[in-house]
Amino acid sequence: MLILKLDRRKSRSLGRQMLEQIIDLIERGLLPPGYQMPSTRKLAERTGVNRTTVVRVYEELWALGYVESTPGSYTLVRRRKEIVSAGDQPAIGKPGNTGGAPVPVKKTLLDSGETPPQSGRGIQPRSGQETMDMELIHMDRLEPDPRLIDRQLFAASARRAVHDPADDMFGYCHPRGYPPLRRTLVRHMQLHGIHASDENILITSGSQNSLQLICQAYGSPGKAVVVEAPTYSMAIPLLRQMGLKVLEVPMEKDGMDLEALRIAMATQPVSLVYSMPTFHNPTGTTMGQARREALLDLCDRHGALLIEDSIEEEMKFFGKVHLPVKSMDDKECVLYLGSFSKVLAPGFRTAWIIAGKQHIVRLAGIKTAFELSSNTVSQVILQHFCSSGGYELHIRKMMRVFRKRMKTALLALKRHIPPDKATWDEPLGGFLVWLQIKPEISDLESRLETHGVRVAHGNIFFFTPPPKQYIRISISKCNEQEIEEGIRRLGQALA
Amino acid sequence: MLILKLDRRKSRSLGRQMLEQIIDLIERGLLPPGYQMPSTRKLAERTGVNRTTVVRVYEELWALGYVESTPGSYTLVRRRKEIVSAGDQPAIGKPGNTGGAPVPVKKTLLDSGETPPQSGRGIQPRSGQETMDMELIHMDRLEPDPRLIDRQLFAASARRAVHDPADDMFGYCHPRGYPPLRRTLVRHMQLHGIHASDENILITSGSQNSLQLICQAYGSPGKAVVVEAPTYSMAIPLLRQMGLKVLEVPMEKDGMDLEALRIAMATQPVSLVYSMPTFHNPTGTTMGQARREALLDLCDRHGALLIEDSIEEEMKFFGKVHLPVKSMDDKECVLYLGSFSKVLAPGFRTAWIIAGKQHIVRLAGIKTAFELSSNTVSQVILQHFCSSGGYELHIRKMMRVFRKRMKTALLALKRHIPPDKATWDEPLGGFLVWLQIKPEISDLESRLETHGVRVAHGNIFFFTPPPKQYIRISISKCNEQEIEEGIRRLGQALA
Repeated sequence: MLILKLDRRKSRSLGRQMLEQIIDLIERGLLPPGYQMPSTRKLAERTGVNRTTVVRVYEELWALGYVESTPGSYTLVRRRKEIVSAGDQPAIGKPGNTGGAPVPVKKTLLDSGETPPQSGRGIQPRSGQETMDMELIHMDRLEPDPRLIDRQLFAASARRAVHDPADDMFGYCHPRGYPPLRRTLVRHMQLHGIHASDENILITSGSQNSLQLICQAYGSPGKAVVVEAPTYSMAIPLLRQMGLKVLEVPMEKDGMDLEALRIAMATQPVSLVYSMPTFHNPTGTTMGQARREALLDLCDRHGALLIEDSIEEEMKFFGKVHLPVKSMDDKECVLYLGSFSKVLAPGFRTAWIIAGKQHIVRLAGIKTAFELSSNTVSQVILQHFCSSGGYELHIRKMMRVFRKRMKTALLALKRHIPPDKATWDEPLGGFLVWLQIKPEISDLESRLETHGVRVAHGNIFFFTPPPKQYIRISISKCNEQEIEEGIRRLGQALA
Repeated sequence: MLILKLDRRKSRSLGRQMLEQIIDLIERGLLPPGYQMPSTRKLAERTGVNRTTVVRVYEELWALGYVESTPGSYTLVRRRKEIVSAGDQPAIGKPGNTGGAPVPVKKTLLDSGETPPQSGRGIQPRSGQETMDMELIHMDRLEPDPRLIDRQLFAASARRAVHDPADDMFGYCHPRGYPPLRRTLVRHMQLHGIHASDENILITSGSQNSLQLICQAYGSPGKAVVVEAPTYSMAIPLLRQMGLKVLEVPMEKDGMDLEALRIAMATQPVSLVYSMPTFHNPTGTTMGQARREALLDLCDRHGALLIEDSIEEEMKFFGKVHLPVKSMDDKECVLYLGSFSKVLAPGFRTAWIIAGKQHIVRLAGIKTAFELSSNTVSQVILQHFCSSGGYELHIRKMMRVFRKRMKTALLALKRHIPPDKATWDEPLGGFLVWLQIKPEISDLESRLETHGVRVAHGNIFFFTPPPKQYIRISISKCNEQEIEEGIRRLGQALA
């Protein structure tokens, strides 16, 4: 029987209290597997808690594997599968496949929806957790939903990091990164078919920092850097600041146009090719296997280094899994970029480069000259988080949550956007959908603002303004209700 | 009566247990003010704890203000002065001057001397806490002693940072830095006579990062960067990596040779002058007021920007206090560098630049292009640490500890180094003493190694190898016993 004791006088929000108490009831067996949960509407009425909050509690219960639900049906308490230990991690893309020693599932707390966070004015200003009906829905940001973070486990990781004198988080770090975290990441990359050693990894202060170091090491005024058109928007100010010559190669339905790349490379010297074969930002596109091989071959033949930016590698939840280009790189011409920023949290500013030893030595030398070492505090806390199994658990949770959220987004797009207003391709994972708007709408930005939804406008992803009108939708910070409502508003704005 | 119950089976080290129990006895009044503590030798015998550990416990008690001692006399329990709140911070250099609302003094735990930390292989590899008689004494590192960190307060700050949804430490940060920390630092700089606003500060990933951003923004191949000779050793690879032209201007007894600077500036264009007027690294020199004014005037007249690196600003514990050049900078030609790395902990990789608004806008633009934002995790934890009064407390503790440690060092130098072997000037604060070795000793490095003491060799601080032989002694990671012993060994090596 679901009996909750919610106390409005407590500093802990009602949503958190509700979540913790339901988890407690399930774990103690008082709500057995198969128990039919009340509808969110009923529970909201009974407890006097805002419906939106109850919906979030149910979403979190689902993400943590405590309940199951099918559309239009009841929510039932579910028998949870145990999480496998890091060494027995199932293949990516098959999260149901368990094995190995079970690790207890940690509780994850839901953020209170009641404290509006500070407004930031940064490049990706942080949102509040909006009350659905009035506030702007942010589909412009590619940044993890902080509601999905296991704060208790982070607090425990930080406590262990502070008190462990052997892991001194207060001192300078090794210039290539905190050695235990390097080992953790090298092991983790094996799951993606990348077999590196400790000499092949450099921890950096975020992927932007990785890109900067690579441009500093290998960019030269006489040679061009090839980027995809469109490309990651913040590569544009970086390459401009570094004064490097840029060549744009168009994106096709399944990745960079390699014929255009071949012609470009035949006519001028190219030092670097910057590509996002998996869940390309902004288009969401994934490059097929044949094209991956051809891209690697082209770079190899022209003596160019391939920067493989794959910071959403973990989020492969639909269809066939493609291994990174780096996994086929027997001639060491790929510099692979990984990051905690898109799947866990950008606040740690912790990312990594995997490359041949000679590249790592060169990049680490520049890193030392520019910054001495990366942030030790972040790295030591992350290492404790990873070694407790928290990162594997988090990835599994993200897979579950976003497989569902992306399905919701794709259904909502079909429902709310008429085919004569916009076209899009369905991604195999990640957080992004790229829409071509047609016919073009000159006042699109203000229309969207009026309807209360924000997206990223296509032009910011190009060096040369494109002839067509695009928008990028990101679902990374929206729950299902927000996605449904945001896309409904988008449809109204386009109508 | 001093009765301790030490338990060897506990995970907490004996030193920690001893420290906590003595503090508890003093706070409960069971060891009243004036109580004569047993000698460290006696207490070591009585408890069976290593003498070195007991010495560290007493040092920590002294640093926290629980006991007083005079050389050759007993250690007595002392009536502690309460710490003032941040708003009523006494002027730097007058730490005894209290006022305002008292804030309770937090307990600071001593590191266990029993767990040898991991050996690092970085640019400043971390040491163990050596057992005095056998192990190397490290006087080569300029890095805070981690034994002086208040770990409990840091653990509490981290916990608050993780659980505070309004201060989301998991997201991207404002590109100019976490706004509450910026405000804290702006307030703090007022104590040093720098009256800046929020528009005048940029938080960076350490002072090396500050320097890199400044060189990127203002360095140009056609203009020279002036550095002092000797200068901060890691400025050398940075300036080389950036491909900038460097001009060395010699150091004199009280700072940069301004006549040489004047001649250099008259003969060629100079974009930046990099100077450390306060506790110059490596010489420990502090520039006098007249020279500060003349330096500012020269930079202003020649349209050069002055980088005032003052990352040991807080450590003014002897003699007259000089205000930063920035405090006189009414024409905005000074870029002031502050940092948490030398006084608190480099692992946070958190530093700041104070400069005119137009400079901050330019530098923040480059920072965004290179890194998006600085580390949010570090900044939010530091802000909680500062706002709880922890930083002010830590500075006061550092002043007390290093005033005493530097006195010990200067006495030991007089005692152990004959004047015909080396000469040095006494610094007004900071952690460094710079020795000229005469006559020169060709096998100095191996001699020092044989005698079990490590120092920084003078050549690494020059672009052009100097005609004389120098060494730099840093006391930042040594306690008094280590300082005395290290300098004794140095004396033997020079003999």
